[in-house]
Amino acid sequence: MEHLNELFKYIDRNTDRFIEDLRILCQQPSVSAQKKGIDECVGLLEKIMEDIGLEARIFEIKNGNPIVFGELRSGSSKECLGFYNHYDVQPPDPLDEWKFPPFNPVIKDGKLYARGASDDKGDLISRLEAVRVFLEVRGDVPVSLKFLIEGEEESGSPHLPDFVRENADLLKADGYLWEGEGVDMKGRPIVTLGAKGILHVEFRTRGPKVDVHSSRAPLVPNPAWRLVWMLSMLKGPDEKIKIPGWYDDVVPPDEEDMRLLEEAPFDEEADKRELGLKEYLLGVIGVESLKTLLFSPTCNISGFLSGYTGPGTKTVLPSEAFARVDFRLVVAQKPDLLFRKLKNYLRENGFGDVTVIKHSAYEAAKTPVNDPFVTRVVKIAKRIYGLKPVIWPTAAGTGPLYVIRNWLGIPVVSAGGAGYSGSRIHAPNENIRLKDYIRSIKYMVALINSYEE
Amino acid sequence: MEHLNELFKYIDRNTDRFIEDLRILCQQPSVSAQKKGIDECVGLLEKIMEDIGLEARIFEIKNGNPIVFGELRSGSSKECLGFYNHYDVQPPDPLDEWKFPPFNPVIKDGKLYARGASDDKGDLISRLEAVRVFLEVRGDVPVSLKFLIEGEEESGSPHLPDFVRENADLLKADGYLWEGEGVDMKGRPIVTLGAKGILHVEFRTRGPKVDVHSSRAPLVPNPAWRLVWMLSMLKGPDEKIKIPGWYDDVVPPDEEDMRLLEEAPFDEEADKRELGLKEYLLGVIGVESLKTLLFSPTCNISGFLSGYTGPGTKTVLPSEAFARVDFRLVVAQKPDLLFRKLKNYLRENGFGDVTVIKHSAYEAAKTPVNDPFVTRVVKIAKRIYGLKPVIWPTAAGTGPLYVIRNWLGIPVVSAGGAGYSGSRIHAPNENIRLKDYIRSIKYMVALINSYEE
Repeated sequence: MEHLNELFKYIDRNTDRFIEDLRILCQQPSVSAQKKGIDECVGLLEKIMEDIGLEARIFEIKNGNPIVFGELRSGSSKECLGFYNHYDVQPPDPLDEWKFPPFNPVIKDGKLYARGASDDKGDLISRLEAVRVFLEVRGDVPVSLKFLIEGEEESGSPHLPDFVRENADLLKADGYLWEGEGVDMKGRPIVTLGAKGILHVEFRTRGPKVDVHSSRAPLVPNPAWRLVWMLSMLKGPDEKIKIPGWYDDVVPPDEEDMRLLEEAPFDEEADKRELGLKEYLLGVIGVESLKTLLFSPTCNISGFLSGYTGPGTKTVLPSEAFARVDFRLVVAQKPDLLFRKLKNYLRENGFGDVTVIKHSAYEAAKTPVNDPFVTRVVKIAKRIYGLKPVIWPTAAGTGPLYVIRNWLGIPVVSAGGAGYSGSRIHAPNENIRLKDYIRSIKYMVALINSYEE
Repeated sequence: MEHLNELFKYIDRNTDRFIEDLRILCQQPSVSAQKKGIDECVGLLEKIMEDIGLEARIFEIKNGNPIVFGELRSGSSKECLGFYNHYDVQPPDPLDEWKFPPFNPVIKDGKLYARGASDDKGDLISRLEAVRVFLEVRGDVPVSLKFLIEGEEESGSPHLPDFVRENADLLKADGYLWEGEGVDMKGRPIVTLGAKGILHVEFRTRGPKVDVHSSRAPLVPNPAWRLVWMLSMLKGPDEKIKIPGWYDDVVPPDEEDMRLLEEAPFDEEADKRELGLKEYLLGVIGVESLKTLLFSPTCNISGFLSGYTGPGTKTVLPSEAFARVDFRLVVAQKPDLLFRKLKNYLRENGFGDVTVIKHSAYEAAKTPVNDPFVTRVVKIAKRIYGLKPVIWPTAAGTGPLYVIRNWLGIPVVSAGGAGYSGSRIHAPNENIRLKDYIRSIKYMVALINSYEE
């Protein structure tokens, strides 16, 4: 720990500089959905990385935003630690709900407010600053480092899979730290070992060429009805997906997963209150709720539109209808195979007329809790945060980590972000606490340092 | 016919004046949906009626638009002929598709363009002018006349039923002529003997208090799914309404109805082409198509909205969903009874959580083709138009004529309007041909005169 003290002292002496770097990065808009400030942000990032002493390479992406890759070889170690982050941010709308301008970072009461402060610029910059600390204090790192920084995470990472497939050697490492989730309400560091997959599909049905008067209903097919009937074939009120073979590849939680769920803090009653629900779907309670949340494939209607839906009424028979459905997938469901099963099922059941569009397809991914990389990440988190980390065997949501975990076979763990439970990511007034930011740098320094111990 | 010649000569000499009255009435906006120009239109109508020599009474309607009632007692007859029309019009939107301003009538190529020219001001004024003809030429009418003119037809006639119930004596007549449908593509006068009823219902479902991330789908009920499942219980792909007892009171078409359908001109192939359909629902063809169209109860989704339906995708689990469904009814289905059956059915099948809102409820109504009033209307139409009238036993659409037909027991026939197949009612560039307008006046004069023959 002697060495760590020296590194931490350097961090404490340089907090103003680290905060200024964060401020500069957050000041630069980089909204992938609106193609706003992307090139400027990439240029800025490159400058920061080179200033720190990292070799930065910019990979141009056809019809997409550049991927920034950073590397630093250790003079003493053959091991390699990878980081995944993204420099793009969510659109700042609705603007009028912000207390401060989203791209003019303001520090107030120990918090920095800006779009991207938590998701994901705070994480990203704290990891880069950790490298600076090593190079300035020691002139070397005890483990080689790779930074995979994409610019389309908030738009579904459409080009990341191809990039990873084509650059498998470049990206090789012994473990990847994914973007972090910071600390929970009680200050406990959050460690997440996986994410669900997704198959996001749009269904489109057509009736008459144009909307017609609903008096024509006895003779003219109604696309809203077609869609209702089709959807009701996908899932019934028992919540079971009816497509044959949908659950074939599902890997249920193992004993270790269930142990983590038993230990996980989850205030079920508070959650229900917040949702305005008397009970969860199908009445699940206790650890069964968490098991259901994290290990169930889902079939969710995210949008349905047909006909006249304005004020009053209009007796119209619509010309078209569409619905979007996101299927969340668990390990080891295969989205492309399931998409084919879905299309076959519709065709075989008289719904071959329905147009089916695939919006996105991610595999689920998961690293076992007893993987040595997980053990390392958790041990250091416990040491730096002084509290037992909260370990989730997987998230209920989706991330593109399968490209590293499943395709390259590398352990992937989400840990050590700059955010906290009040960070309001994707919402107005996104913010981080500066103390969390500085601690996040210390955590990264300690993790990198652990390869020397 | 001596007398008729004298009357027709008067019409021919005064066409400019009749057209000017039409122009003045069409110039006055009277959009019930937007509460625009209603009082001004009522004042104008009262002035025109009094100028003609009709006694006009304005019935104020609480939270609604006034009903104008006009009456003229015959000096020679105890019989009474009633007219139903409306002075309100559809909103003129979309304005930029009009060749001429909707409330600044322009005459071009023998046509008058204005919102309401056909529906229903052309009809209304041609009937009033017929009275003028009699009073100026003869000083009397051979049958007493009553004019029931409402101002909310384009908004679903919400106050007409109560008004009719409360004024049954005032409204008594031996037959009512409903707003006309003019002539078809071949110049044949259209006579319609009934209309379907309707039960227009909105279904609302609720999930979490606010939209949540769709990763919560394993635990949180999705209102779009609730609505899909509920709707799929109302009707399946066989087009049969599943609510018990829905068809109990249905009166099927009788021999006379079927004879009218056999004779009705209906270009099935042209209709399918226009709709962009290869075949009608369930493959019906020939006279079976018309029977299905006019005598089947329907269950039509006119609108469905839930979740995010903008561009791209958003993995949201919606907080609410709603759908509007219009059930068209046939003779002698009872909308209030059916509404109760619907609600019971939902409750008994686990959908008691669905909010059900009744938007409108009309009975179907129908006058037999062999009723003496129908015979009279048809005979005069044939004489004036010189072509065999097209007689429809009922319309596929809905109108409030049941209040006169079913409640007061009076025959009701739709005939003799100023419109034609190109009138574009409810659409931009609504218009009538002036020759149809003048002939409509002549038809009304002949019909009134028939009570003397």
